[in-house]
Amino acid sequence: MSSDALVFDAYGTLFDVHAVIQRCESFWPGKGAALSQLWRAKQLEYSWQRSLMQRYLPFSRVTREALAYACEALELPLDEARSQALLDAYLDLAVYPDVPAALEALRRGGRKLAILTNGSPDMIEPLVKHRGLQEIFDAVLSVEPTKVFKPAPPVYQLAVERLGIAAPSIGFVSSNCWDALGAKSFGFRVFWINRAGAPVDRLGFQPDGILRGLGDLPAKL
Amino acid sequence: MSSDALVFDAYGTLFDVHAVIQRCESFWPGKGAALSQLWRAKQLEYSWQRSLMQRYLPFSRVTREALAYACEALELPLDEARSQALLDAYLDLAVYPDVPAALEALRRGGRKLAILTNGSPDMIEPLVKHRGLQEIFDAVLSVEPTKVFKPAPPVYQLAVERLGIAAPSIGFVSSNCWDALGAKSFGFRVFWINRAGAPVDRLGFQPDGILRGLGDLPAKL
Repeated sequence: MSSDALVFDAYGTLFDVHAVIQRCESFWPGKGAALSQLWRAKQLEYSWQRSLMQRYLPFSRVTREALAYACEALELPLDEARSQALLDAYLDLAVYPDVPAALEALRRGGRKLAILTNGSPDMIEPLVKHRGLQEIFDAVLSVEPTKVFKPAPPVYQLAVERLGIAAPSIGFVSSNCWDALGAKSFGFRVFWINRAGAPVDRLGFQPDGILRGLGDLPAKL
Repeated sequence: MSSDALVFDAYGTLFDVHAVIQRCESFWPGKGAALSQLWRAKQLEYSWQRSLMQRYLPFSRVTREALAYACEALELPLDEARSQALLDAYLDLAVYPDVPAALEALRRGGRKLAILTNGSPDMIEPLVKHRGLQEIFDAVLSVEPTKVFKPAPPVYQLAVERLGIAAPSIGFVSSNCWDALGAKSFGFRVFWINRAGAPVDRLGFQPDGILRGLGDLPAKL
């Protein structure tokens, strides 16, 4: 079975969210890893909770609120300048080392390539541009118009509509297992990038493929 | 402002979910606390993710799946007998020490008292009975009929309908801040039981009252 398009999650899949550790560390030495981990955990929790509460906010706002919580919980003094500096780091996250070559190889296969992300346009568009990836993607899709976050079906439906390709012909790639399984539940063919060797989440579905990195993807298609 | 009814979250609020640590510890010495913590975290994540995926399963099943994940992640061998023994511990969780006296005092105020829980009837009903609390509550409400978990509005609406009391006249009590704020977003008057001294979650709402334990509640009403 081939895929007419490949749709990638952004944060954690193409871009390393923990690339912010260094900036955290410069403000609060020795606390960077703990802050980055709690910040990311609350960012995701708030995205799920706000979706269920029907209180959507753009991911840039959710990310800011998660940072405020994480700093308070870890007793790290956060002022407006530090908050903005850390949020700015999200606009310039590093890509994982295996990403550029893998995207080039996949592009040569003639498929459409797209991003489908929780990130609001004010976050994802500058990031894609900073990393020089705007030419490689046919579409950069934010959940913003659906006013709900992953793994809600309307998010995945957005890719079907914007790419004009039926769900079974879309390959979806995420390093977040719950996102991969949400996409599988929706009807995509999914590849879970399991960089950390974690167990498969128990959500009633299995990925079609499990890879250790994006570099393994071209050979699987 | 008074409340005509008080509605309590169950797990973490009345019943100590980490009361399972002892049984975990008996199977895997030294790992009880880590297992209990990851089990609870995945139980909640799966409840949010399955709700968003529109793939509701009874909380007893979600709890079983979260246990399987947590054991695999921590490399703790889990067989069917141990899985069942740990799930059975959920039917017999201890109440927090301040719960019985507080419920008695609140009951004397003439208010209706109810439980509103993610727990499926097969989990919550045996637990309430084992702890001798069936007489003190006017209703024990499970999210089951709504086929979605907290903090989705239909869950809180269930209490309005079953108790026949308007949302602003219902006081809601939870030690899970996101649950308290979901209830606040819905329209209840809420009390967050903050036993651990955690920060308020950033979800766009504030609790009406923050208490260190259930024993402080009667004086606040």
